[in-house]
Amino acid sequence: MPPLPRLTAAQYRDGILGRDRAVLARALTLVESELAADEPLAREVLAAVLPHTGRSLRLGITGVPGAGKSTLIEALGGEIGRPLAVLSVDPSSPATGGSILGDKTRMERLGRSPDAFIRPSPARGHLGGVARRTRESILLCEAAGFEVIFVETVGVGQSETAVRQMTDCFLLLLLPGAGDEVQGMKRGILELTDVVAVNKADGENAARARQTQRAYAAALHLFAAAAPPVLSCSARTGEGVAALWQVVRAQADPGRRPGQVMAWFDELLRERLWQRFHAEGEVAARRVELEAALREGRMTAPEAVARLLG
Amino acid sequence: MPPLPRLTAAQYRDGILGRDRAVLARALTLVESELAADEPLAREVLAAVLPHTGRSLRLGITGVPGAGKSTLIEALGGEIGRPLAVLSVDPSSPATGGSILGDKTRMERLGRSPDAFIRPSPARGHLGGVARRTRESILLCEAAGFEVIFVETVGVGQSETAVRQMTDCFLLLLLPGAGDEVQGMKRGILELTDVVAVNKADGENAARARQTQRAYAAALHLFAAAAPPVLSCSARTGEGVAALWQVVRAQADPGRRPGQVMAWFDELLRERLWQRFHAEGEVAARRVELEAALREGRMTAPEAVARLLG
Repeated sequence: MPPLPRLTAAQYRDGILGRDRAVLARALTLVESELAADEPLAREVLAAVLPHTGRSLRLGITGVPGAGKSTLIEALGGEIGRPLAVLSVDPSSPATGGSILGDKTRMERLGRSPDAFIRPSPARGHLGGVARRTRESILLCEAAGFEVIFVETVGVGQSETAVRQMTDCFLLLLLPGAGDEVQGMKRGILELTDVVAVNKADGENAARARQTQRAYAAALHLFAAAAPPVLSCSARTGEGVAALWQVVRAQADPGRRPGQVMAWFDELLRERLWQRFHAEGEVAARRVELEAALREGRMTAPEAVARLLG
Repeated sequence: MPPLPRLTAAQYRDGILGRDRAVLARALTLVESELAADEPLAREVLAAVLPHTGRSLRLGITGVPGAGKSTLIEALGGEIGRPLAVLSVDPSSPATGGSILGDKTRMERLGRSPDAFIRPSPARGHLGGVARRTRESILLCEAAGFEVIFVETVGVGQSETAVRQMTDCFLLLLLPGAGDEVQGMKRGILELTDVVAVNKADGENAARARQTQRAYAAALHLFAAAAPPVLSCSARTGEGVAALWQVVRAQADPGRRPGQVMAWFDELLRERLWQRFHAEGEVAARRVELEAALREGRMTAPEAVARLLG
């Protein structure tokens, strides 16, 4: 197959604004690219679509594999009734790639809908990069007219803080059976959470799901003045899904976006200053020496920093 | 009163190693100083005592004013039976200065003991500075032979993460009455906690304290595979204090120190790179423009960073 002809920034922009799915997919690949040669065009495309962004509801969703995130997104799709996009954050890996891909292929109904766009995880890339690209992917999807954007993560790594920092509402999906599932996630996940939902509250699990819901509601009340609401639902039967959607909408706060953008700017700037400094000639070698001195307790950290900079 | 004669680094070192309390107090003031002129001597003193540091148990303790931190430290003093020092982290302020000072004067027994050293909060200074100085104050106290060092904070600000990062064990002290007290603290405090104790479990509060203990134990179990132990005690009557001390000792992990030192080094280096960059001629002015563009959605953060650096 011959390579596709290169598109100009204007062609990307027109394709995205016209919701041409092939062009959108190519734009996402461009933004995800780690090739330095792709960066100028990626920046041009983003600048071109930027005036058409910002008008979606941005939702983070996390939960261990098997919690039912994809099934819930499908079920919510019916409630939402507006074009929606699903982006996955976690880089594929032998450990999680299978189940994420499995989830994706399970979103059959949404996958066939012209009003939905599903983007699997980038195949590789370190986390910081993935998080950066996901912010930009949100902008591309917004320009393409998707009004609700889900950003999905499996909640075991460092990506949750980043996702919380790019969404209006962060939903934690649990399974019935108090505790077992959060134990697989990182400590502190609840600090990031705006809404908690216990899924699979159906059949013989229904009672256990309500019990889990009550346990988490009581526990969260101990930890925060504004404890996140805790619901239960069944993505499979649809029970509680409409109520969950109302709560998610009510909790969503686009007012945190300006702060998010400034925090993102500061974080990127810090990262670039760090990289630039470490690219200087002797820094790496001197750092190795200083780290040894720190490790062996021969020097304090302020002393080491003063020497590295001085 | 004429100013005290200046001490040399060697005099500081000898005084500290001989546990001369007046010299130790002056060394702490030197390390706390924000005068650039004091910095070289402070660094020299730290370098001189550094070989004599690292042999204490470093304990963080947090809880709202009134939780009984000072009374508990006094009660623990009897269990510990070794020289101990108490350092406060939170900068004094009209809002908290009074109660912290109040706590201090309440540590009457320890205050009179030759085996204890109590250092109130630095009178001023931004948090980052206070945290930096507290790490260095720990080193000075260790060199002076204090074998247990408490670092105390009121748990309402950003200092808890810093304290967790400089101690072997971080203790959260609660009051009976589920939830009310943690609600005054920052969300996420439990993520930092190694041991939780419900204080004032005496008299008519005893039953309520045990109830609070059970509620937190159950709640924490939902949030972490290795949930911190939850105890109750009465610092006033001494009940449960010996057991608490055993648990704190068991949970204390000096093995996290090398990681803490490296994290401190990285954090300081990032901070200095940031300061150095912003001291460059046009950066501040250009930053104002770029921030306006970000706020108004006219630019993405990566674009703004590229322009600021390029």
